[in-house]
Amino acid sequence: MTKAIRRIGLLTGGGDAPGLNAVIRAVVKTAVRQYGLTVIGFQNGFGGLIKNQAREMGENDVAGILPRGGTILGTTNRDNPFHYPVLKGGEMAFVDVSDRVFENISIHEVDALIVIGGDGSLSIARELHEKGLNVVGVPKTIDNDLSATDQTFGFDTALTTATEALDKLHTTAESHHRVMVLEVMGRYAGWIALAAGIAGGADVILIPEIPFDINKVIEKVNQRSASNKKFSIIVVAEGAKPQDGDVVVQRMVEGSFEPVRLGGIGNVVAKQIEDLTDKESRVTVLGHLQRGGSPTAFDRILATRYGVAAVNLIMDGKYGHMVSLQGIDITSVPLGNAVGELRKVPLDNHLVLTARQLGISFGV
Amino acid sequence: MTKAIRRIGLLTGGGDAPGLNAVIRAVVKTAVRQYGLTVIGFQNGFGGLIKNQAREMGENDVAGILPRGGTILGTTNRDNPFHYPVLKGGEMAFVDVSDRVFENISIHEVDALIVIGGDGSLSIARELHEKGLNVVGVPKTIDNDLSATDQTFGFDTALTTATEALDKLHTTAESHHRVMVLEVMGRYAGWIALAAGIAGGADVILIPEIPFDINKVIEKVNQRSASNKKFSIIVVAEGAKPQDGDVVVQRMVEGSFEPVRLGGIGNVVAKQIEDLTDKESRVTVLGHLQRGGSPTAFDRILATRYGVAAVNLIMDGKYGHMVSLQGIDITSVPLGNAVGELRKVPLDNHLVLTARQLGISFGV
Amino acid sequence: MTKAIRRIGLLTGGGDAPGLNAVIRAVVKTAVRQYGLTVIGFQNGFGGLIKNQAREMGENDVAGILPRGGTILGTTNRDNPFHYPVLKGGEMAFVDVSDRVFENISIHEVDALIVIGGDGSLSIARELHEKGLNVVGVPKTIDNDLSATDQTFGFDTALTTATEALDKLHTTAESHHRVMVLEVMGRYAGWIALAAGIAGGADVILIPEIPFDINKVIEKVNQRSASNKKFSIIVVAEGAKPQDGDVVVQRMVEGSFEPVRLGGIGNVVAKQIEDLTDKESRVTVLGHLQRGGSPTAFDRILATRYGVAAVNLIMDGKYGHMVSLQGIDITSVPLGNAVGELRKVPLDNHLVLTARQLGISFGV
Amino acid sequence: MTKAIRRIGLLTGGGDAPGLNAVIRAVVKTAVRQYGLTVIGFQNGFGGLIKNQAREMGENDVAGILPRGGTILGTTNRDNPFHYPVLKGGEMAFVDVSDRVFENISIHEVDALIVIGGDGSLSIARELHEKGLNVVGVPKTIDNDLSATDQTFGFDTALTTATEALDKLHTTAESHHRVMVLEVMGRYAGWIALAAGIAGGADVILIPEIPFDINKVIEKVNQRSASNKKFSIIVVAEGAKPQDGDVVVQRMVEGSFEPVRLGGIGNVVAKQIEDLTDKESRVTVLGHLQRGGSPTAFDRILATRYGVAAVNLIMDGKYGHMVSLQGIDITSVPLGNAVGELRKVPLDNHLVLTARQLGISFGV
Repeated sequence: MTKAIRRIGLLTGGGDAPGLNAVIRAVVKTAVRQYGLTVIGFQNGFGGLIKNQAREMGENDVAGILPRGGTILGTTNRDNPFHYPVLKGGEMAFVDVSDRVFENISIHEVDALIVIGGDGSLSIARELHEKGLNVVGVPKTIDNDLSATDQTFGFDTALTTATEALDKLHTTAESHHRVMVLEVMGRYAGWIALAAGIAGGADVILIPEIPFDINKVIEKVNQRSASNKKFSIIVVAEGAKPQDGDVVVQRMVEGSFEPVRLGGIGNVVAKQIEDLTDKESRVTVLGHLQRGGSPTAFDRILATRYGVAAVNLIMDGKYGHMVSLQGIDITSVPLGNAVGELRKVPLDNHLVLTARQLGISFGV
Repeated sequence: MTKAIRRIGLLTGGGDAPGLNAVIRAVVKTAVRQYGLTVIGFQNGFGGLIKNQAREMGENDVAGILPRGGTILGTTNRDNPFHYPVLKGGEMAFVDVSDRVFENISIHEVDALIVIGGDGSLSIARELHEKGLNVVGVPKTIDNDLSATDQTFGFDTALTTATEALDKLHTTAESHHRVMVLEVMGRYAGWIALAAGIAGGADVILIPEIPFDINKVIEKVNQRSASNKKFSIIVVAEGAKPQDGDVVVQRMVEGSFEPVRLGGIGNVVAKQIEDLTDKESRVTVLGHLQRGGSPTAFDRILATRYGVAAVNLIMDGKYGHMVSLQGIDITSVPLGNAVGELRKVPLDNHLVLTARQLGISFGV
Repeated sequence: MTKAIRRIGLLTGGGDAPGLNAVIRAVVKTAVRQYGLTVIGFQNGFGGLIKNQAREMGENDVAGILPRGGTILGTTNRDNPFHYPVLKGGEMAFVDVSDRVFENISIHEVDALIVIGGDGSLSIARELHEKGLNVVGVPKTIDNDLSATDQTFGFDTALTTATEALDKLHTTAESHHRVMVLEVMGRYAGWIALAAGIAGGADVILIPEIPFDINKVIEKVNQRSASNKKFSIIVVAEGAKPQDGDVVVQRMVEGSFEPVRLGGIGNVVAKQIEDLTDKESRVTVLGHLQRGGSPTAFDRILATRYGVAAVNLIMDGKYGHMVSLQGIDITSVPLGNAVGELRKVPLDNHLVLTARQLGISFGV
Repeated sequence: MTKAIRRIGLLTGGGDAPGLNAVIRAVVKTAVRQYGLTVIGFQNGFGGLIKNQAREMGENDVAGILPRGGTILGTTNRDNPFHYPVLKGGEMAFVDVSDRVFENISIHEVDALIVIGGDGSLSIARELHEKGLNVVGVPKTIDNDLSATDQTFGFDTALTTATEALDKLHTTAESHHRVMVLEVMGRYAGWIALAAGIAGGADVILIPEIPFDINKVIEKVNQRSASNKKFSIIVVAEGAKPQDGDVVVQRMVEGSFEPVRLGGIGNVVAKQIEDLTDKESRVTVLGHLQRGGSPTAFDRILATRYGVAAVNLIMDGKYGHMVSLQGIDITSVPLGNAVGELRKVPLDNHLVLTARQLGISFGV
């Protein structure tokens, strides 16, 4: 590293996750106290870097934010500087405005930038690095589906929220002898469903990586009834899919039946159980509750470690890298290893094997 | 009271609610310890009374159940003895099987019966009383919409669950500058939405008692944006309705647009906000999470007081009555006063007035 | 009311309680939005009024504080303007500095002042009112021992914290067959112990209003053992007292035994149980955890209602009054009715009777 | 493995920890469903093995226990079969009764035994194994101070309880400008204090591994005051020690001052801060709350994995081993590696380094 670091930038991108504020706090504290740096926070993801929405952040700005969900910097899923929407002659077009990013970096005399984000934001971070920017990354996704790190912060909190929901559904399932279906996040990877299913005592777990057969699900429900357990709990990742393609149900529209997809996969599963068994079934879709709330102790610690490590990464000049949890250690990996390919649940994953040994069904 | 009470029956009916087990425990402890009675628990609501599913309940059976959601007796929304479904010549018919109830009461030598339930179960209790059974009632509904009592147990817990959900949605709303919509229970009465809206800092509360104008909702969202509050939180009772009748949206079905109701009212409101503003909007439907979980301290105390009072009511021979909270006192009212008409939110209710003074919009 | 109200002052006094911020928020929102007033917040209780530590508070200052414990205005148990400590010739003396309060009220052109506090702060508020200040009060104490209101905000949250602690102690008590003692707040009144004892399923409740006999406590523990319940849960208010005066234990100090009071009453009770039975006993002192944390939904609503009502009280010119909960209604009472005498638990209180019917022992 | 396994035994020993029930459930489910074994549960730790308190455990016995704290088998810190207390001629003596263990194992035809416990219980397990018993171990301690495993179950829950306590103390510390001291478990190792201190935003962390200088603690408190942060949060492990030996304070006893140790180290630190600064200080001792309550999702998953793995270990004939977490994998290590030496916090531990970079003081 030839040039001394004096000022660093910071932004949060993509969907919000519990622990973002803990990273921000750790970055600011470490940068200011430990290294005497100035920290510039860019607001609303890459949007703030494009539109020059920025402010200096001192220790007072991060006081009290450790236990709070969300991000005080704001975030967005939009505003990719390499693919930015503009109106041209009444038509929407996408253009490269990444030069503006470099201008604003220059205006604020930022020597290096920390990007906290998931696959999308870290991909942009990599592109910016390839174009010459000093960037380091911090991996974030509640889905835990990012490659090159054992765990992302936000996942433990989302898992906790889903597990608490299963606890609540248990009592109502038992009391009413019902089949309760909980749909959780996980469009491409089933980590939340898998882990919450084990932690919450589910009987069936349906994940995108293991296409299911509804008849096998029903078989499990009926087996339990036969052994006098008159209720069942099913966790479904939003991206779970039946083996025989997507499910539609017939629905009366204007006097004739039409094939319609009724809501998410949770609704579909519940509907089929009611149709094919004598059980009542109810579905709960957790949705954005999984992104909210105070981060768990685990996530606060992981996020704090990531924040400290990201500043150290800059001081070491390891640009183009992302902090990463490997076992119990924080290391770093090239951004290129982290993005582009989601980390799916392997069929021989230890949680899958644990679930099978407990008798949990994956609907196959 | 001419005949000495020696054995009492107990059942829980209708949808489950946090606190049912607390009532059961208080009934058994008071009956056994205080009065030396025998308690017979009938299982699965009135179904157990019809099909003679019953067991004696001692103190050991209720040990440890105070903090648990649900009901150890089981419950159901079905099995009305005066309107019981039977198959006759391949057709479903409804018949009066209430004689079986009296037979089973007689078999177990039950001198008086405690029915814990909502409007439906207490209506049946009243009919049974009119037909000669010694019945007392305990009011239960998470919706708090039962007449003749200031509060039902289960409501405070449901309110707490909804408020915690609002806390979680707040952080994501702020971070993303979104409009977050939370749909809560309340088909005919908006108590949960109203109370949770105040406790959770909502900007808009939509309840069945106040039909709303979506343009007024949007006006509120835009006002906030104009004063630099870029997010809004909306609580919608599931039974909330627009002033101009039910809302349908146009949806492409087989090549042409058809009017379709997309899910619940929460989805409708979120969809309209996205259509009519530049804001992103997301909806969460809490559903059965509101019925589950460990009861709050408030609900445990109220449920315990109700259980103790119900046994006292029997010892006083006040059959045909239900225990009731009036201010801070437990009294009793005739079952007839309690059922038949739901307690809706009056427009001059103190919480409505409080909300208005805080600037919360009801969409009117 | 002859003079138009344009500016109001606000302070929080005494020990902090969950819900203080909810009152502050409601006062500011109602005052600013509803009536177009200016709100001046005085910091750190009456200290800020004496030392002129004040700032204008707008809606942005109270954004997001509803779910947060503590008070953004700061508070203290000290700084009574009628009894203010000053150093005179090396000696500490107490003097009347209330004129400074009037000066600062005048400097900020405050037309009326809202004091949120317990017995101590409201007594000062009354004195200031008698000396000519336009004051209204909002009752606050987690102990719920204030006269002239059915409930103070903060109590439900403290009760919830104590109940959750009892839930946690239950599992360890059962697993180890121990007697677990929980000491909760309540120096002069046993409301928290009483309510938490019922909500948390305690076997013994010891409160200041009912001096206890340790032999009766032990009798209860042994009775449970005899009926095969090998653990017991005891809740003790910090102000609970044995019938035969305070308890000391003999302790070896410098070679001879001396009478020493070992910690609080919880420790004393646990020690005596270990000495007089064959049971292990452990004590937990909740302490300041009971003052902290996010207020419950109940407390947020009550605090919000109080805040709105306090502003209305000012607009109605009802100075020298305090808002008060009567049943489910908010009314107002003269400050003189509220202070001076703590509201203790009457022996015929409904919770006491409920506890007795459940078989809970008060150690008598 | 020469002999087929048909019946296995199971016991829980030492202090209870959240997750014990999750292990029990996983053992029973895996043993019964997966391998068709019979499971015998011995009650109250090694006591049940000595006194033949045992019962067969089927799937119904473990239904619903996953989210519950404690252990349905009971546990105790006493009853070491190699050092068992008996009365001989009015004197207490310790004798070896391990033969009784072998008798009872034989009576129940148990082929192998699973011992879930901490250092003490696993040491006994190793002795029994050396004497010829087929034993496997599962590591349990909320203190996380067991060698040969990265994490024990129960720790994450204890950490969560301590972190939530710090969150609650924060609001009261801020409101009152106080120094709040939280004493947590950790007699010999400071893992809970260290992790909770980071997760809860503490300013000072005092652990047994780093003897502290109270003047350095006070220096930190004063530094914060000087930079306008008028409160501080201190976490103290119960085994933390000052550099200059144990702390006593002078106390008036019978007219003269005597050196007395006032309660735990938390009290000592709080007292010294009040004596040596102008700050008010309050101490909270979490005590057994840290052992109680529903296990976190993390602990439920870890405990479940351990339970499944312990049965697999038996089926593989790996007696004398204990299941162990290494990074994200469950492996096994000889019991001898696990016991005898506690795992203390190394001074170059990553959490220690993280804390230092954040500016947290260890009082040195």
